[in-house]
Amino acid sequence: MDEMLNFSDEAVLPSGFRAAGTSAGIKKSGGHDMAMLVSDVPAMAAGVFTRNRVNAAPVKLCRERLRSGRVQAVVVNSGNANACTGAKGLEDAYETSRAAAAVLGISKELVMVSSTGTIGTPLPMEKILAGVKDLAGLVSETGGEEAACAILTTDTRPKRHHVVLEMGGRPVTLVGMCKGAGMIEPNMATMLCYILTDAAVEQPALQDLLADAVERSFNRISVDGDMSTNDSVIVMANGKAGNTPLAPGHADWPLFEKAVKELCLRLAVDIVADGEGAGKVISLKVSGAKTGAEADRAVRAIANSFLVKTSWTGNHPHWGRLMDVLGYCGIEVDENAVDIFYDDLPAALAGTAAGTPVDELKKILARHSFTISIDLHLGDGQASLYTCECTEEYVRINL
Amino acid sequence: MDEMLNFSDEAVLPSGFRAAGTSAGIKKSGGHDMAMLVSDVPAMAAGVFTRNRVNAAPVKLCRERLRSGRVQAVVVNSGNANACTGAKGLEDAYETSRAAAAVLGISKELVMVSSTGTIGTPLPMEKILAGVKDLAGLVSETGGEEAACAILTTDTRPKRHHVVLEMGGRPVTLVGMCKGAGMIEPNMATMLCYILTDAAVEQPALQDLLADAVERSFNRISVDGDMSTNDSVIVMANGKAGNTPLAPGHADWPLFEKAVKELCLRLAVDIVADGEGAGKVISLKVSGAKTGAEADRAVRAIANSFLVKTSWTGNHPHWGRLMDVLGYCGIEVDENAVDIFYDDLPAALAGTAAGTPVDELKKILARHSFTISIDLHLGDGQASLYTCECTEEYVRINL
Repeated sequence: MDEMLNFSDEAVLPSGFRAAGTSAGIKKSGGHDMAMLVSDVPAMAAGVFTRNRVNAAPVKLCRERLRSGRVQAVVVNSGNANACTGAKGLEDAYETSRAAAAVLGISKELVMVSSTGTIGTPLPMEKILAGVKDLAGLVSETGGEEAACAILTTDTRPKRHHVVLEMGGRPVTLVGMCKGAGMIEPNMATMLCYILTDAAVEQPALQDLLADAVERSFNRISVDGDMSTNDSVIVMANGKAGNTPLAPGHADWPLFEKAVKELCLRLAVDIVADGEGAGKVISLKVSGAKTGAEADRAVRAIANSFLVKTSWTGNHPHWGRLMDVLGYCGIEVDENAVDIFYDDLPAALAGTAAGTPVDELKKILARHSFTISIDLHLGDGQASLYTCECTEEYVRINL
Repeated sequence: MDEMLNFSDEAVLPSGFRAAGTSAGIKKSGGHDMAMLVSDVPAMAAGVFTRNRVNAAPVKLCRERLRSGRVQAVVVNSGNANACTGAKGLEDAYETSRAAAAVLGISKELVMVSSTGTIGTPLPMEKILAGVKDLAGLVSETGGEEAACAILTTDTRPKRHHVVLEMGGRPVTLVGMCKGAGMIEPNMATMLCYILTDAAVEQPALQDLLADAVERSFNRISVDGDMSTNDSVIVMANGKAGNTPLAPGHADWPLFEKAVKELCLRLAVDIVADGEGAGKVISLKVSGAKTGAEADRAVRAIANSFLVKTSWTGNHPHWGRLMDVLGYCGIEVDENAVDIFYDDLPAALAGTAAGTPVDELKKILARHSFTISIDLHLGDGQASLYTCECTEEYVRINL
């Protein structure tokens, strides 16, 4: 059953999808700053959005549009987040969706929009509306890669993976593309992700699966601990593969579920690996906490500690900084029971130095990716998180 | 009644106190790394310590010694925190206090110790014990300044203030010295503070006053949000001024209370102003929160946001990043009700841009110190906090 999935790093579009990217002049750099993803027919759709109580106009629009569970197109712009823009911002988001619907000849109820960029500045609607027209003329079956590039901000590379599954003798394609913690002008980090598949999938199974996959991937990463106003993960399943609709109980559901989860995890790790100014992927694991919630609190506090993140940059195995965070993050901890490992090597045992030579530990911290495992020896609670280091470049990018 | 207090930036010791600093060879730099503060007679003493559940051996020793409310000497070392050092670390702290007691000819129960520096490495006891002997020979009535310098780590300047009050026709002196968020080798930021006075003060009034003063000063600052394992604020009042013992109800109590609180606040602001790699003092004020606790949560979340702190470094009035933090920090917020001011200028009103020219706001952010006032318009909760920006140098210091 544990079938290997052969993902490739390409934005190959599933049947019945077209996409494009273009430069609408929103970014000062002149780079591509708008993308469109469109299905030939209305697709089953689901979404997971930021939990930030301050959230952008496009997030509000998407939440409303997803009530029907059906979507046919998404318009994305970078360079401006359309957040903290009040009633005008909401009207701009709706106007963008109406314009896309008109030019695509579909119902406006089937169009979603996403934005990422500066907060608090109204959308440059003239540019946006011209971009929408432009994109409608450009979308093609081979436009996936361009769309994957157009949604980027300070990302240094596109993030996309695709996989072809076989279901009932038919090929079923999934593709995912995302942008990571990047700034524009510079401003707010935002994570946007789009998953397209030609599989036929039932609602609400699609929503439940996406929520579960996001919980295990995008919600298990942290670049700087700042949750954006615009974070969005959207999936569209247009059924063009011709399979019998998937849902729990269907013979092919486990394979589909596995593919969606692995796709999300691959994209999430891409985001960490390309975190601003960062180059490492650190996997944090806390076990033996009193509860799972306490373990989760611990990994997040560690991932958000300035002192811990800067020590990773310097390749220094300052396990004392980890002990310090465990002590202040509000969980139960017995300082004389804590074990800390960097990959396989113990740094601290029972709360004091394990005696491993510092140079051996430094070699692990110099790796592109490594794991820090902490056992609190108090209970069964465990949690994990992927994160990255904090560099001088991170500060420069965000000045 | 609102008498002006004439503080000066000197570590002039009150009557009956002696102090010294020396180099014991703990710091690789060879700089001064041990200090001793000693009173001619046992002093009333009080202390406030880190709330970190992982705390250093010297903190454990101080908490025990303060049960009697009387202390005569404090030995401080920098370069090694004696934290996460297990039973050996605790034994080392006690041995240090015994050695100091022996050489000073006083009871070991009257000696406290403080440490700051690397976590997880045993104290170099040979150097510590030689340093204790050295210091006992060096302490003098004019040694305050040397002690104030010896407790520093990556601080760029000594932090000390003294003031002389008049009580019943007699001069009463207070002096305070502290070290801020600095790293050694580099490692954990620790705040240590010592307040000495020749006033006669009753216990537990002294403890209550110190706790209140710390709550309004050292607990209202944040450099990087990392609470140390070693934070300690200690006060000793030896009664040598000959005043009638102070306590609430005494005619001079309000003046003494005011002086202790102002002394703590001056020292706390010094710490922020000399935060690692930082140069600004930002005063954050949140009002109109549902509760005081929610306002407190908001100011701390803002002070600990990487994105907010780096934008201050760049002098950018990214008020959207403040909105973002307000949205994710777990408090109640109505994004359409939030007002944000930089000093007197509005950046956002009712959650959207106030229209103040960005260049005007930038001028405020370029100031050495400025205030950010946020009104949530939801209730009566308010809180304030002093903090600093996050610079590339901060990252370099902590690599």
